[in-house]
Amino acid sequence: MGESFGRWTLGDDEAMLDIVTSANVACGFHAGDPEGILATLTAAQAKGVVVGAHPAYRDLAGFGRRNLDASPKELYGDVLYQLGAIAGLARSIGAEVRYVKPHGALYNTIAYDEKHAPAVIDAIGSFDESLVVMGLAGSPFVEKAKAAGLTTVQEAFADRASTPGGELVSRREPGSVLHDTALVAERMVRLVQEGVIEAIDGTIVPVEADSICVHSDSPGAVEIARAVRDALVGAGVELRSFAA
Amino acid sequence: MGESFGRWTLGDDEAMLDIVTSANVACGFHAGDPEGILATLTAAQAKGVVVGAHPAYRDLAGFGRRNLDASPKELYGDVLYQLGAIAGLARSIGAEVRYVKPHGALYNTIAYDEKHAPAVIDAIGSFDESLVVMGLAGSPFVEKAKAAGLTTVQEAFADRASTPGGELVSRREPGSVLHDTALVAERMVRLVQEGVIEAIDGTIVPVEADSICVHSDSPGAVEIARAVRDALVGAGVELRSFAA
Amino acid sequence: MGESFGRWTLGDDEAMLDIVTSANVACGFHAGDPEGILATLTAAQAKGVVVGAHPAYRDLAGFGRRNLDASPKELYGDVLYQLGAIAGLARSIGAEVRYVKPHGALYNTIAYDEKHAPAVIDAIGSFDESLVVMGLAGSPFVEKAKAAGLTTVQEAFADRASTPGGELVSRREPGSVLHDTALVAERMVRLVQEGVIEAIDGTIVPVEADSICVHSDSPGAVEIARAVRDALVGAGVELRSFAA
Amino acid sequence: MGESFGRWTLGDDEAMLDIVTSANVACGFHAGDPEGILATLTAAQAKGVVVGAHPAYRDLAGFGRRNLDASPKELYGDVLYQLGAIAGLARSIGAEVRYVKPHGALYNTIAYDEKHAPAVIDAIGSFDESLVVMGLAGSPFVEKAKAAGLTTVQEAFADRASTPGGELVSRREPGSVLHDTALVAERMVRLVQEGVIEAIDGTIVPVEADSICVHSDSPGAVEIARAVRDALVGAGVELRSFAA
Repeated sequence: MGESFGRWTLGDDEAMLDIVTSANVACGFHAGDPEGILATLTAAQAKGVVVGAHPAYRDLAGFGRRNLDASPKELYGDVLYQLGAIAGLARSIGAEVRYVKPHGALYNTIAYDEKHAPAVIDAIGSFDESLVVMGLAGSPFVEKAKAAGLTTVQEAFADRASTPGGELVSRREPGSVLHDTALVAERMVRLVQEGVIEAIDGTIVPVEADSICVHSDSPGAVEIARAVRDALVGAGVELRSFAA
Repeated sequence: MGESFGRWTLGDDEAMLDIVTSANVACGFHAGDPEGILATLTAAQAKGVVVGAHPAYRDLAGFGRRNLDASPKELYGDVLYQLGAIAGLARSIGAEVRYVKPHGALYNTIAYDEKHAPAVIDAIGSFDESLVVMGLAGSPFVEKAKAAGLTTVQEAFADRASTPGGELVSRREPGSVLHDTALVAERMVRLVQEGVIEAIDGTIVPVEADSICVHSDSPGAVEIARAVRDALVGAGVELRSFAA
Repeated sequence: MGESFGRWTLGDDEAMLDIVTSANVACGFHAGDPEGILATLTAAQAKGVVVGAHPAYRDLAGFGRRNLDASPKELYGDVLYQLGAIAGLARSIGAEVRYVKPHGALYNTIAYDEKHAPAVIDAIGSFDESLVVMGLAGSPFVEKAKAAGLTTVQEAFADRASTPGGELVSRREPGSVLHDTALVAERMVRLVQEGVIEAIDGTIVPVEADSICVHSDSPGAVEIARAVRDALVGAGVELRSFAA
Repeated sequence: MGESFGRWTLGDDEAMLDIVTSANVACGFHAGDPEGILATLTAAQAKGVVVGAHPAYRDLAGFGRRNLDASPKELYGDVLYQLGAIAGLARSIGAEVRYVKPHGALYNTIAYDEKHAPAVIDAIGSFDESLVVMGLAGSPFVEKAKAAGLTTVQEAFADRASTPGGELVSRREPGSVLHDTALVAERMVRLVQEGVIEAIDGTIVPVEADSICVHSDSPGAVEIARAVRDALVGAGVELRSFAA
């Protein structure tokens, strides 16, 4: 959320904040101008939604969805800068950022790589060791963050297809983003109840997830989020933030 | 300081940090990439120099030296964002930002205006009331910040000519930037001893200043800073940061 | 048009291009990434709509709607750069940019100022003397461009309120943007038939206009544009581009 | 050249332009503000130096030296935009851009890849088929550009070490940038006379080169360029631009 920028609006943060328990908020490098980020933080605070930082590669034109071969030191600084910036905005309203979920290409890259993952983990650790780190369920990144002494949370994606190996199918591949609300909701109930997700090729993949992600910029995002929430609640699942 | 950006270096921060007692450090909107800001903060910490945030209008191409007609809410967010960002970088090394000195066109504008000054003061106050605010000696901005309950510091400029009214002569005017090291040093000793500065037209202007600014990006900046320091120390003045 | 940027979309260019005869296309400084600009140019070419460059101050975060105190030489270069960039994109598809309409704060500033107007006019003239220059109807800018030997076109605004002096009411004032489609259409028919516009205070102001602007990013932009077109056609007015 | 940006200056373009026969000029995406680019173009014109466009990935913070995973369509637009922008600046002074040499990470990537090379070649071809394309000597990129019907020029690097395979040693590796002026000059004379370069491991690599690159932002760039020129002239080589 908070992914508008100046004249450009994106997502319906107010509506999403009525549905989710935790919100990843843009930090300005892929999206988010300070006034807009602050508005989203303020709305989240009013609705009791836990807020996480959503740092990204420095790439407004690419919305942080393009790999950028920054040096580890550059990336370390860039993540720190973004964590501080959003924490400063939160502090101005007496709110707090509780967790960190890297965005877009950064998220996908660090899930498996050896170069950028440590820079992100070090930046989080040197900024605030009490921040919870969210990563792709089952990825080496989560293990690395845990090994660095940070509290971690594993995440599954409601609206994204998975490979048999448990990775997200690239947005450039057909079928990568799921639009069928009922199917998405059903997949998430199965995930919570059985601990599995059906991959894009039909394989049943075991997934251990603490959190479910819905992209607020997808078409129909609010409907998807509401369907997932309703389906989970209907199935007797109690929803709460992992970082409350 | 910290005003390099990516491939572009500016100023000799290491040398300046051996001379000054307080350093205004760029926050990324007019200059300063996170890796470079962090390097400057680290060097300042090692040398015991007090650090202040140097927020600016969002204008890399203009180095924050062009007026930008942001709305007060935009500016409020932009200042908060920058304060948080540099505080985050400082926090990562166990350092602290102690004061705020707005940069360039923002500094000059808020010295006298009614629109941007409150946005800056509110942003500082809502981020951290204990931050010292630095403003142009004798300007309404300093009064406003004081009235808002903030601790203020008045600043004179070693290397900039003054108008008879006590404002800085615009950088676009001839004679606005002083290059004669001996003259600059002598002016500053007189300022400290007699509380006056000679304006560009020869008028003797009373100036009450707690701090003397030397621009680290001027040609000969290190020499000017050293000359001012040596002249002051030679005149028996004890130098220390206003925010130590 | 062409005012999307990366992930952020703005306006319905395809629909607008079915209605208008000339399209001002963003050049990247206030909005518009190259891929998106090219898409808009391609659509305009397919629909036979004449295209103009829409250069702006360098201010993505403010969508070019904030005054920016660039030096005349900076602005001269910035306008040239943008004219060349969009001409290059047009050239790649065998299309041509026929006119120039500055955007947002730049448009408003140069309508009356002495500092930025000559920089814009010089940039256009030194890039291509055959480009038509569009300016606010009745403004000194149009006179200056004419005096510089350029072909000019005077413009009125369908969806913006006017002051009694014929200037646009600032977007920061209430009532500055008109949303009543029928009223807007009626005003434009009156403009064409009687050569007058009713100002925000009720004054009837004579306005000599060659072109009518509809903002493609206003809510209801397509409806407004269609209503204006239908009303004009219904009143027997023949619409065609001033630069075909 | 033209790689300054706003307050930040880089390289001594005036001095370099007295030495070289062709100048690659930044187009704004990795460096270069329009006013500065125009100044470099004007100086090149005055000194009779042929000018080429030096387009790059959109990455000011990384000076275009970081890989950026743009889509081919994004890159195609980005290159066109930059070609047009610099051509517009050149046109304003009656000068012409005669060739294209991609910059930094883009240059290195397209030398061998299948994804970005066609986008660059297509952009150049659709902008102006008469533009000469410069690429790394011996790289598949040169072959691809030739196959697309473009005139190509092969380039060797005076101040960069080569791998045994003829690629540039990455800037992140030790020994990648050569600083020994005499050695650099000697290598280039050997290249011209014997058609070989000694790789970083001592291998003698055959290199067919039409142009020799000296980076204007390297420390000692002017000295290196002069030494290479003097050594070549001393060896009886006649220097002239490949695109005059």
